Amino acid sequence: MPRVKDTAKLLYSIYIVITVIQIVVLLLAKMPLFDTLTLTFGTVGTGGFGIKNDSLASYTSLQQNIITFFMIISGINYSFYFLIISKKFKDAFRLEEVRCYLGIIFAAAILITLNIAHLYHGFADALKHAFFQVGSIITTTGYSSTDFNLWPEFSKTIIIILMIIGACAGSTAGGFKISRMMILLKSVGVELSNMIHPREIKKIRMDGHVVKPEVLRTAHVYLVIYWSFFLLSILLISIDNFDFTTNFTAVAATFNNIGPGLAGVGPMSNFNSYSIFSKLVLMIGMLIGRLELYPIMLLLLPATWKRK
Amino acid sequence: MPRVKDTAKLLYSIYIVITVIQIVVLLLAKMPLFDTLTLTFGTVGTGGFGIKNDSLASYTSLQQNIITFFMIISGINYSFYFLIISKKFKDAFRLEEVRCYLGIIFAAAILITLNIAHLYHGFADALKHAFFQVGSIITTTGYSSTDFNLWPEFSKTIIIILMIIGACAGSTAGGFKISRMMILLKSVGVELSNMIHPREIKKIRMDGHVVKPEVLRTAHVYLVIYWSFFLLSILLISIDNFDFTTNFTAVAATFNNIGPGLAGVGPMSNFNSYSIFSKLVLMIGMLIGRLELYPIMLLLLPATWKRK
Repeated sequence: MPRVKDTAKLLYSIYIVITVIQIVVLLLAKMPLFDTLTLTFGTVGTGGFGIKNDSLASYTSLQQNIITFFMIISGINYSFYFLIISKKFKDAFRLEEVRCYLGIIFAAAILITLNIAHLYHGFADALKHAFFQVGSIITTTGYSSTDFNLWPEFSKTIIIILMIIGACAGSTAGGFKISRMMILLKSVGVELSNMIHPREIKKIRMDGHVVKPEVLRTAHVYLVIYWSFFLLSILLISIDNFDFTTNFTAVAATFNNIGPGLAGVGPMSNFNSYSIFSKLVLMIGMLIGRLELYPIMLLLLPATWKRK
Repeated sequence: MPRVKDTAKLLYSIYIVITVIQIVVLLLAKMPLFDTLTLTFGTVGTGGFGIKNDSLASYTSLQQNIITFFMIISGINYSFYFLIISKKFKDAFRLEEVRCYLGIIFAAAILITLNIAHLYHGFADALKHAFFQVGSIITTTGYSSTDFNLWPEFSKTIIIILMIIGACAGSTAGGFKISRMMILLKSVGVELSNMIHPREIKKIRMDGHVVKPEVLRTAHVYLVIYWSFFLLSILLISIDNFDFTTNFTAVAATFNNIGPGLAGVGPMSNFNSYSIFSKLVLMIGMLIGRLELYPIMLLLLPATWKRK
């Protein structure tokens, strides 16, 4: 869009339209008004604030499926909706990040369904929970329809990896972001190809456009900050002597702005047992993660405050 | 050195000299000849092959301390010894990687000592075990003097982080390598500084020399391959349904060529319970990790095998 103001207006409009549609659909599915409003705000903003202790476990399957759908579409890059509004349907459906995002969701949900089918009343029930949890975790919403801490390790490991990946850039979700991950993985291919054919200069492309060197560089540095902060946080909260799975997923769940982790901080537990010090570490993680690392890092740098 | 042959000769000489000194010292400390030879070969090559089920737990404190010392000096970059031989003592002790490596060892050992002191007969005993385990894990040797799986979570988390870091480049150790980690952390500082002062062009330096862009690039790409392979391996072996701590440290211990992990693969256990499929995944990890990722990645690339 030509002006920042217009872009902001458009983003708000998309946000409001999705919110209104979800409210109407949930009301049609007979959800009480208060629940509808709070859960919708928690879905479209991917905040994941539920009003019941068991999160979304006690709602009907239809209501849960509606939430699943809206969680997933809230994790899509808003450029997709912008292209749809501009009637550039082909371009919209060709967006690499959106394709990759939906591909990961389907693959993860199918693998989990096969892995957890024996725990539920039939395949359809397992499929519902798998899609709900995958949608909730990858978009960093954090709602739960079931206690996925009781799932087999394979499904839980998928959940942990989705926690780290996160959803599309340009959506309301947190996490490492699909596009950043794609750029980094593409850089591996280019690096290997350059090793074999040093004279060919291969470039990294997203949606047909060459990725600028500074974008690539900041994505690489982002990974360094991400894992440094991740490991440091795990070390700091390990002083409370909880097990590694609890600590690892506690950091994953807060740093990526999800909510529930696994083991001691699973969907049916909370972070209450951690000491005040650990809570502070996790709080800082939530802030740094939500603002995508750089702004807070810059605030903490002495050079930012020096007069020139 | 002017010629590759001379460099190779020198590296072998350093290797042999360290080996011979360790053999003599261990024999003086009354270790039987067979034990001395096998344990020395396992120390200087950082392979960590022990001949007893309890690894090094049943040897005397003096013998354990000697092994600790030789494990740590085997993880130092061999350029250090080259500079010592060339009588460039100042340059040797100024090597940033070696300083950082020794700094991490001391910091980690002191923190662990304070954390485990109550488990042992006095401070000295705790200090001995802390230095032994830190030396063994950071150099990816893998010997154990005690069951560190029984340590408090804070000490275990330090061990996990040391597993990932590894020792100096240009030593016989595995892992991510100190110099690579330093270059990546320095790139964070440079990136942040460039954000504040976009007109200043800051460069990354190691030992006073500017790090070449391609060295920086391959270090960044290395991190991407490292974590991608790490997470993928954890996912694949999670099919066996062991807990996340066991799977995470099983991958950390094999991919970084250490040996023991924690929980189900702790120093008093082994990898026997994993399925053949998981063992294959971990075996591939050991190979890829030992050869520093790129060679095996290139072998697997179809373009490598195409005729031009």
